[in-house]
Amino acid sequence: MKKNILVIPGDGIGPEVTTWGKAALEKIAEIFGHEFIFEEALMGHAAIEVTGEPLPDATLEKARQSDAILFGAIGHAKYDNDPSLKVRPEQGLLKIRKELGLFANLRPILLFDELLQASSIKPEILRGTDILFFRELTGDVYFGEKTRSEDRNTASDLMIYHRYEVERIAHKAYQAAQQRNKRLCSVDKANVLESSRLWRETVQEIAKQYPDVETEHMFIDNAAMQLIKNPKKFDVVLTANLFGDILTDEASQIAGSMGMLASASVGESTGFFEPIHGSAHDIAGKDLANPLASILSAALMLEIGFGLKEEAKVLVDTIDQVLKEGFRTHDIADQNTNRFKVLGTAEMGKLVLK
Amino acid sequence: MKKNILVIPGDGIGPEVTTWGKAALEKIAEIFGHEFIFEEALMGHAAIEVTGEPLPDATLEKARQSDAILFGAIGHAKYDNDPSLKVRPEQGLLKIRKELGLFANLRPILLFDELLQASSIKPEILRGTDILFFRELTGDVYFGEKTRSEDRNTASDLMIYHRYEVERIAHKAYQAAQQRNKRLCSVDKANVLESSRLWRETVQEIAKQYPDVETEHMFIDNAAMQLIKNPKKFDVVLTANLFGDILTDEASQIAGSMGMLASASVGESTGFFEPIHGSAHDIAGKDLANPLASILSAALMLEIGFGLKEEAKVLVDTIDQVLKEGFRTHDIADQNTNRFKVLGTAEMGKLVLK
Ligand SMILES: CC(C)[C@H](C(=O)O)[C@@H](O)C(=O)O
Ligand SMILES: CC(C)[C@H](C(=O)O)[C@@H](O)C(=O)O
Repeated sequence: MKKNILVIPGDGIGPEVTTWGKAALEKIAEIFGHEFIFEEALMGHAAIEVTGEPLPDATLEKARQSDAILFGAIGHAKYDNDPSLKVRPEQGLLKIRKELGLFANLRPILLFDELLQASSIKPEILRGTDILFFRELTGDVYFGEKTRSEDRNTASDLMIYHRYEVERIAHKAYQAAQQRNKRLCSVDKANVLESSRLWRETVQEIAKQYPDVETEHMFIDNAAMQLIKNPKKFDVVLTANLFGDILTDEASQIAGSMGMLASASVGESTGFFEPIHGSAHDIAGKDLANPLASILSAALMLEIGFGLKEEAKVLVDTIDQVLKEGFRTHDIADQNTNRFKVLGTAEMGKLVLK
Repeated sequence: MKKNILVIPGDGIGPEVTTWGKAALEKIAEIFGHEFIFEEALMGHAAIEVTGEPLPDATLEKARQSDAILFGAIGHAKYDNDPSLKVRPEQGLLKIRKELGLFANLRPILLFDELLQASSIKPEILRGTDILFFRELTGDVYFGEKTRSEDRNTASDLMIYHRYEVERIAHKAYQAAQQRNKRLCSVDKANVLESSRLWRETVQEIAKQYPDVETEHMFIDNAAMQLIKNPKKFDVVLTANLFGDILTDEASQIAGSMGMLASASVGESTGFFEPIHGSAHDIAGKDLANPLASILSAALMLEIGFGLKEEAKVLVDTIDQVLKEGFRTHDIADQNTNRFKVLGTAEMGKLVLK
């Protein structure tokens, strides 16, 4: 198989983790005889520094021409501390999601047995958990009109949904549920928000086309609680952009660490694969980041992007093996014991490749 | 002390738990020689059934004339299942918050030692946690303009903040932090939302007036994760209406159960005290609900509403004692052991009063 892959390292720990996601893809190509052609491009703070734009046209052009994109992370403390800056790294990520029509963000909560102890949640609560989130990614308050009054004392963001936006992701989520445990939980705030009422109405309609899937509707506040109270009860979770952002980060504690979770954004054409962790400037360049989420992003690219299930499995199994052998990065090591061999980013990356 | 207290039982389990919050207040009045005069009023589904309105004028009138309000819960499955209904129970709660100017919702995460085991989170992660949430309550996407297009295919809610709204609650939160551990974490989504950028800017300004308090700004997705990863790092958490709704429900797992958390809504005049749990129609009328959050709401009324610290402490200590003696309601009992004496709503209520 021949594929063009665009690598966008981005900001913070993005470059150092993406190195290993890319290396994993190269290794897979070598083993299975595929031809993966890599290009690289700028986005975020890294792009602003060079071009003044968070998403340069050249990056978007390359993105459109590639078969899949491996992304690192975005964001920089400078902008976080100064809300008044007009050009911001995150605009690059939001724009590429919109431009490529990446309306469905899939976030599987993959639980490695070996990491049950790394979570703040009790192992007996976690064991057996298997959740697949479908987060809507190109609508909601993320993309609605933003305003700031002239005196700068009033600011607003429009939370808005169109029926077709809910329909298309609902279909994807239901189809996935059919292949899994046939349960779908749609999360909204329909007791307060009109956009959530449209969301709920629409999901109720689509549900009729999937009578083999059991549908539940849950309010976001309750979902944030149930997710950690009893994660096993969830199978597919379908939700809006903002609620999905919050719930999936929360769910990272189920997997033991944010450093272990990858996501796939799909929609109209090219798929976009990235860790769910952020740019983590505080640890950037210190060889402390966990490269496993980037390698798992590569695995998602193989599986969801290219339909290469066996190749994806090799990566996941290798990570499982490395964990079984007691190797950990800082984020998933239990500081209180000497049970683990704690590795830096590069050592962990190399070990998985071996 | 002489006080007029309005009791609004509301919907679902509201009436059965509020009975015990009220009884606790009566008992305290008796012991300490206060005169509490009670009135009752309708709100929510209960009010719609009788008057057609979720917040009848008579209720609002009584509310304005009272010194404090003890509220139960709101909501009904009928409306949750039919998003197209125009008159909805929750409108009553939102309207009374707005009309009484209850802009600050205080949610202390009170951790009873005895309940460390009832949480899905590991006891060693929880031990020592002491968080006070300040949730903004009369702004945000809750109160911004809602629209639905004529073809019903597009719906929106305006997420909007004015600087003065952020300022007044920030002052309250900082003042509380000064009395506590002098740390304040403000939660927003300033990397995406303009209203959050106004929020962050404003908090940064106010922070300068409280140099003795250490301020941190955190994105909501990260906060949802940190809250369960390392709850001890939080002291005062200041956040917007929607984010506060989500985070505080999530935080209920820290306290072992939603059935253990109370909240105080304060602002321009009359304080409003309620459990953070919802109407839980599925268990309503079955003597399964936990009355402790309502009794703790009564304690908050005594402490925050009337400045009666000693009286409040009697209630909290009594609950502590009852838990120490091994008594539990269903939600906080560990089903796997016989260690606990599991009680119904009424038995638990009576026991605390004794
Ligand atoms: C960086 C930020 C804009 C982004 C989001 O909120 O979508 C991130 O948190 C994510 O979840 O991918
Ligand atoms: C019932 C609902 C409108 C309410 C809210 O979202 O504010 C509730 O969840 C709460 O937290 O008090």
